[in-house]
Amino acid sequence: MNSFGRRLILSTFGESHGPAIGCLLDGVPAGLEIDEAFIQSELDRRRPGKSPLETGRKEADRVEILSGVFEGKSTGTPIAMVIYNTNQKSRDYENVKKLFRPGHADFTYWQKYGIRDYRGGGRSSARETAARVAGGAVAKLMLRELGIEVEGGIYEIDGIRANRLDFAHARRSRLNALDPEAEMAQEEAVLAAKEAHDSVGGVVLTRAKGVPAGWGEPLYYKLDAILAEAMMGINAAKAVEIGSGCESSRLKGSENNDPITPEGFLSNHSGGILGGISDGDEILVKTWFKPTPSIFREQQSVTTEGESIRFSLKGRHDPCVAIRGTIVCEAMMALVLADMALLNLGRKMEHLHSIYRR
Amino acid sequence: MNSFGRRLILSTFGESHGPAIGCLLDGVPAGLEIDEAFIQSELDRRRPGKSPLETGRKEADRVEILSGVFEGKSTGTPIAMVIYNTNQKSRDYENVKKLFRPGHADFTYWQKYGIRDYRGGGRSSARETAARVAGGAVAKLMLRELGIEVEGGIYEIDGIRANRLDFAHARRSRLNALDPEAEMAQEEAVLAAKEAHDSVGGVVLTRAKGVPAGWGEPLYYKLDAILAEAMMGINAAKAVEIGSGCESSRLKGSENNDPITPEGFLSNHSGGILGGISDGDEILVKTWFKPTPSIFREQQSVTTEGESIRFSLKGRHDPCVAIRGTIVCEAMMALVLADMALLNLGRKMEHLHSIYRR
Amino acid sequence: MNSFGRRLILSTFGESHGPAIGCLLDGVPAGLEIDEAFIQSELDRRRPGKSPLETGRKEADRVEILSGVFEGKSTGTPIAMVIYNTNQKSRDYENVKKLFRPGHADFTYWQKYGIRDYRGGGRSSARETAARVAGGAVAKLMLRELGIEVEGGIYEIDGIRANRLDFAHARRSRLNALDPEAEMAQEEAVLAAKEAHDSVGGVVLTRAKGVPAGWGEPLYYKLDAILAEAMMGINAAKAVEIGSGCESSRLKGSENNDPITPEGFLSNHSGGILGGISDGDEILVKTWFKPTPSIFREQQSVTTEGESIRFSLKGRHDPCVAIRGTIVCEAMMALVLADMALLNLGRKMEHLHSIYRR
Amino acid sequence: MNSFGRRLILSTFGESHGPAIGCLLDGVPAGLEIDEAFIQSELDRRRPGKSPLETGRKEADRVEILSGVFEGKSTGTPIAMVIYNTNQKSRDYENVKKLFRPGHADFTYWQKYGIRDYRGGGRSSARETAARVAGGAVAKLMLRELGIEVEGGIYEIDGIRANRLDFAHARRSRLNALDPEAEMAQEEAVLAAKEAHDSVGGVVLTRAKGVPAGWGEPLYYKLDAILAEAMMGINAAKAVEIGSGCESSRLKGSENNDPITPEGFLSNHSGGILGGISDGDEILVKTWFKPTPSIFREQQSVTTEGESIRFSLKGRHDPCVAIRGTIVCEAMMALVLADMALLNLGRKMEHLHSIYRR
Repeated sequence: MNSFGRRLILSTFGESHGPAIGCLLDGVPAGLEIDEAFIQSELDRRRPGKSPLETGRKEADRVEILSGVFEGKSTGTPIAMVIYNTNQKSRDYENVKKLFRPGHADFTYWQKYGIRDYRGGGRSSARETAARVAGGAVAKLMLRELGIEVEGGIYEIDGIRANRLDFAHARRSRLNALDPEAEMAQEEAVLAAKEAHDSVGGVVLTRAKGVPAGWGEPLYYKLDAILAEAMMGINAAKAVEIGSGCESSRLKGSENNDPITPEGFLSNHSGGILGGISDGDEILVKTWFKPTPSIFREQQSVTTEGESIRFSLKGRHDPCVAIRGTIVCEAMMALVLADMALLNLGRKMEHLHSIYRR
Repeated sequence: MNSFGRRLILSTFGESHGPAIGCLLDGVPAGLEIDEAFIQSELDRRRPGKSPLETGRKEADRVEILSGVFEGKSTGTPIAMVIYNTNQKSRDYENVKKLFRPGHADFTYWQKYGIRDYRGGGRSSARETAARVAGGAVAKLMLRELGIEVEGGIYEIDGIRANRLDFAHARRSRLNALDPEAEMAQEEAVLAAKEAHDSVGGVVLTRAKGVPAGWGEPLYYKLDAILAEAMMGINAAKAVEIGSGCESSRLKGSENNDPITPEGFLSNHSGGILGGISDGDEILVKTWFKPTPSIFREQQSVTTEGESIRFSLKGRHDPCVAIRGTIVCEAMMALVLADMALLNLGRKMEHLHSIYRR
Repeated sequence: MNSFGRRLILSTFGESHGPAIGCLLDGVPAGLEIDEAFIQSELDRRRPGKSPLETGRKEADRVEILSGVFEGKSTGTPIAMVIYNTNQKSRDYENVKKLFRPGHADFTYWQKYGIRDYRGGGRSSARETAARVAGGAVAKLMLRELGIEVEGGIYEIDGIRANRLDFAHARRSRLNALDPEAEMAQEEAVLAAKEAHDSVGGVVLTRAKGVPAGWGEPLYYKLDAILAEAMMGINAAKAVEIGSGCESSRLKGSENNDPITPEGFLSNHSGGILGGISDGDEILVKTWFKPTPSIFREQQSVTTEGESIRFSLKGRHDPCVAIRGTIVCEAMMALVLADMALLNLGRKMEHLHSIYRR
Repeated sequence: MNSFGRRLILSTFGESHGPAIGCLLDGVPAGLEIDEAFIQSELDRRRPGKSPLETGRKEADRVEILSGVFEGKSTGTPIAMVIYNTNQKSRDYENVKKLFRPGHADFTYWQKYGIRDYRGGGRSSARETAARVAGGAVAKLMLRELGIEVEGGIYEIDGIRANRLDFAHARRSRLNALDPEAEMAQEEAVLAAKEAHDSVGGVVLTRAKGVPAGWGEPLYYKLDAILAEAMMGINAAKAVEIGSGCESSRLKGSENNDPITPEGFLSNHSGGILGGISDGDEILVKTWFKPTPSIFREQQSVTTEGESIRFSLKGRHDPCVAIRGTIVCEAMMALVLADMALLNLGRKMEHLHSIYRR
C-alpha cells in the first residue's frame, strides 16, 4: 500500500526524521538514458527554503542512485534512490509528542496503528513527496523520449486566480505562478498569512502536451480516475478537476461537448480525456490544496490520553503547500502517464505482431 | 483493468447491447447474509425509465446470482451476478456506426483498440454501472453489519444548489434531491434542457456514517485518493471534492483546521479524512457530473474515415446523468469502504493476536 | 484471490453444483479472431465421460460468450464465458454433508470459512478447471498468432513412464498418452485401480514450442516460478519440475549446463528457461498429480461435529485425475505464456519507440 | 515485477556489483518488536565464505534499517533495509563481459533487455537473495509471535539422501545437513566436485510447525501454489514438491489419503495442505537445486557478437548452491506464511465483528 502504478511502479519509504527517505522505481524500460543531473534539478525545484514563501527548513535533498542504472542507462531492473535526511530537528517535536495537531494525520495514524513516529509527522510528512519527485523525474525522462512534456503552475492562491496560463513564467517564478499579473497579489496573500501566523490554500494546474490518443485503461484504471487518485493522494489535496471540471457541471451539453474536426477538437472542456482514455488533446488537471494545517496560532485539540488542550505549534512550515506542491503534481502526472504508456502496450494484437514479428 | 479494489474486488463485464452485463465480486467474507431482494431493490433505484427525468429506455435489470452464495449466505468464494440485456435496440445505433459522437468515448476507443462495439457505446455505456450497483449492494450489506450507512443525493443541478441536506428526502425524491426546496427548480432545469434537446450537469453528495477511525492505507491507497478514483471513474464525472473540497482552498488554516475535543471534531471541513485515513467523522464526497453528452441538437464531428460531418443523434438518453448517478456514487463509496475495512485488518499485531489467539 | 495473471487475467467463479461456472478473461488484445468452435473443442477434450478411464458423470460443458467479442473479434474488453451446470446430482452428496473426505478440501474450507458448499466439493471441485480451459483456449488463439504451440500428454501413470514423447499420438489417445508403447500398461493400471475401487496418480508433460527468448519477469514473476504456481495450483498437483527438474540435482554442473552455439543450445536440461526468462528453446514442464482422493474403499475421518467415522464414498469419479488434467496443464501454460508475452512489452525503450513512433 | 506477496510485500533492488542491494518490506503490522540482531544473524547464516564448502568471496552483509521502525517497534510503514556491497571485484568479470556463461541468465537478460550489467550476474546474481533473507527474518519475527517456526536443512546432495530429519542438527552443521549420518558423504561430494572444478546439486527441505488450519487463498493464491512459486523463483531451483510430492503420484489413493481422526491426521502425505489451504499439520516443501552453473572447466558458448567460443571461468563460486540456499528457502517460506496470515484476515464475517466490534 506504499506503491503507486501498475507497470511503472513507484514504492516509497522513509520518515521525515528517520535516517533517510527514498523510492524504488520498478518497470523502467531498459535503455533509457538516466540523466542524474536532471533528477537532482527536479529535487532542487521542490527543495524547501528557497524563498520567504517557503518553510525555513533546509534540506540538501541529494539523491543517490543505488541500482538499476549501468553505464548511464537503465537496465530494466528496479531503480532505487535514497535521500538521506540531514536537517532533522527532532526536538522541535517533543512538544507535539503527546497531542494531535488539528488538520494533521497525527490522530488517524494513532487510531490506525496504535503507535506513531511523532517527529515531523513521520511517514505522513510532506517530506515523503521528495521521493515522488525523484520517481517522477525518471518518468519525465521516459516521456520526453516520446515527445511529451509535463508542466505545472499555480492557478490560484487564497482565491486569487490566474487569468493567463504562462507555464514558461511559472518555471522562473519563485511562486511557480502561471499568471505574472496575479503573481504579486498571490505572493502578498502568502506573506500576509505567514505574518499572521496563519496559512493559505491554493490550486495547481498541471498540463501534459503531446500525449497520443489511446492512453488510459477502461473501466477501472481510467486516465482521469488515476490522475484523480494520484493528485488527491498528495498531502493536503482536497479536490481534483479534469479539464473544465466543476465548471462543466454548469454548462449545457451543447456547450460542453467538444466538437470534433479533422484537425482536432474545437474546444477542450474534456481536459484531453474521453471515456477515461486520452483523446490527443492537452491533458489538464487542477488540484486544490487546503491551507497548511501547521499554523502558529493557538489551537484546540486533545492529548493522546484524551484530555482537552490548547497549544501553539512551533517549528518551520510552508505558509502555502500548493507552491512546492506544484512540482509534486507534475511528478504524479508524469508517473501516471508513463504507467499508462506501458499499460497501453498490447491492447491491440498489432502491437504484439509488431514487437514479436517473426 | 476491469477490476476495482484490492481485497473486495469488483470485476465487471459486458456491453450495452451484448447478451448480458454483470460482475464478479471477490473477497466477500464468508457468513454474510445475502439479501437478494435488497440487491434487486438497489438495481431498481438505478433502473432507467422511472420518470420523465430519465431516459425512456426500459430495462428490467433482473439480477441473477450464479455463485458464491449457499443457503442464503456468502461462502467466501466469488459472487458472480448477471443481468441479461433485454431492451437493446441496436438499430438505433446504425447511424452512429461510422462517426464519433462528441463528448463520448467513441473516438478514444477507436484510437485505442482499432475496433469498437458502436451499439450504445458498447463497453463505455453507462449501462455498465448496473454491475457496479449490484456489487455495491453487497458491499452495503457488509457495511450494515458493521453499523455503517452510505447515502447519496443531488446537491446541485445546472448550478442550482441544495441548501439543506435531507438524505431521507432524497430517498423519496424522483430526482434524488437533497433539498426539498431546491428540488422544484432543479427538476425544471432538467425538463427544460430535455425540451430543448439539450442536457444539464449536476453534483452528487455522498455520505457515510459510522465509519470507525483508522480506515485508509497510506501512502498510495489513501481513503480520499481511492474515493477520488472511484468517483472520477464513473461515466461523465469531471471533478471530485472531499469534505469542504474546493472551498477549503479559500479558507485560512485557522478556519479550515477542525478543532479536536474529547467528544470529537468541532467541524468537518476534512470530510472525515486526515492523512488519507478516516477520523471517525462523517465521510463526505462530492462528485461533479458533466451534462449528458448525448444531445439531440445538431453537432459537429468526424467519421471513422476522418471526414467532417454534421449530424443529430436519435435515441433515448437521460437529460441529466447525475440523477441516476446518485446510486452509482453510493455503490462506489460502499465498495471503497468495504475494501478499506478488509485492508485495515492486520495493520496492528494485535489484530493477528486477536484472530489467531492460541 | 480468484484471479490469475497480471496482464492477461483469468478470474473464475462457480461451484460444482451451483447454477453455473465460468470466467472473465481480461486483457485480451483487441483484434484477435475468437474461434468459438475451437474454445468448445478444448472444453470437449476436458469433458468427463468420454471413456471408461474417466468419471461417468456427463456434462455438456457448453460455453457461452457474454461479452468482449464483436463481429467475431475481441474488442479489448473483458471476455465473459459461462458454462451452465446441467448434470448436478446434489443428492449424491447428502452423505458427505457432515463429514470431511480425506485428501479433499472439505476440512480446510470448513476451517477457513466456517461454511461450505458440500455438494461435490463446491468451489474446490475440479469442475472449476473447465473455466481454466475456456480461458486457456483464448490464450492458445493468441499464442498461435505468434507461432507458438502448447501441447501436453501423459508422461507417467502409476509409475509407468513414457520412453517416447509423441505429442501427436497424445492428441489421438483417450489416455492422452505420449508413448504409444507405454499406453497399454498405463491404461491397465488405471482400470485395475478403478476395479479395486481405488485410484492412481500420474505425471503430465507440457511443452511450448516457438516461444521467443526474453519472456519472464525477474525477479518475482519469473517464467519458471509462475509456471510452477500455475501447475501446483491445479487440483491434486503435488510437484512441478522445469526441464530436467529433479534429475538436474543429481548431475554435475559440467553435465547439466546446456552448451551454447551460434545455432542454439546443444541440450535442454534447463527446459528453455534461464534466470526465469525464456531462452528460445522448448519450454518443458512436468506436473505430478496425486491419485484421486475420491475412492470407494472404506476410509477413516471425522464429522463436522468432530466425531470419528468410517465411511465409503459413493458417486462418480475419475480413477486418475492426470488424464483430464492434461488439458488443464495446457491451458495453464498457455495462460502463463500469453501473460508473459504482454508483460514483456515495454521492457525496452525501443518497444515504446516502435509503438509510439511519431 | 520485483515484488513478492500481496499483503506482506517484499520488493528488492540492487545488483551484485552495484553500490548496494536491499529491500522494502511493506505490510508489516504495527507493534512488532524488530530484533535487529536477529535479522543480522539470519544474514550471517547466509553470508558466504564461512567454510570451504562455500565460495571464498567475503561479504560483511551488514544490514541497515532506513525506515519503518521507531523505538524498536514496527510502525506499520514500509521497512527499508540496505546492504552495501563491499567486496565486489568487478575486474573478475571483464573476461565474461562479452560472452554468455552457460546455465546463467547472461543470454536471456541480453535477449530481454538488450543491455546487461555483466559484473557477477548483476541483478540475476544469487547475491540478491540476501535481501530476501533480510525480509524473511522480519517475517519470521511475525510468525514467532504467532507460535510458528520455520526451519530448513539439506535433504539430499549429489543424490545422497537424508534418512533422518534433524532440524536441530542442521542449525549446527556447516552443510545445514538434516541427517548427521549422511552429512560426511554429502560434504565429500561437495569437496570432490570443487576439487574437480565442477559442482553438484542438492535438495532443501523446509518445514513450518504451528501453522493453523485455514491459511491459503483458493483458487489462485493457494498456499501450495505460492510456495511453489516462491521456491522455484530462487536462483537455480528446478523442481518443487509439496509433502510427499512426486512419491504421491506412485501411490494408490487408499495409500496417499491422510486419514483424519479427532486428534489430527494419521499421516502427512499432503504436506499440511489440502485444496491449497493449510490443514494444521506440518507444512513440508522440498526444493531441488541444479548444480552451480559457474564451473571452472572449459565450456562452450557464444559471444555477444554471436561467435562460438570455448572458455574457462575464473572467480569464486559455491560448489553447491543448495547449502546456502537453505536459508533462502526458509526466508521464502516465512514470507509466504506471513502473507497468508494477513490475507486470511477477513475471510469470515466474524473476523470483522471481532476487530470492529462496536
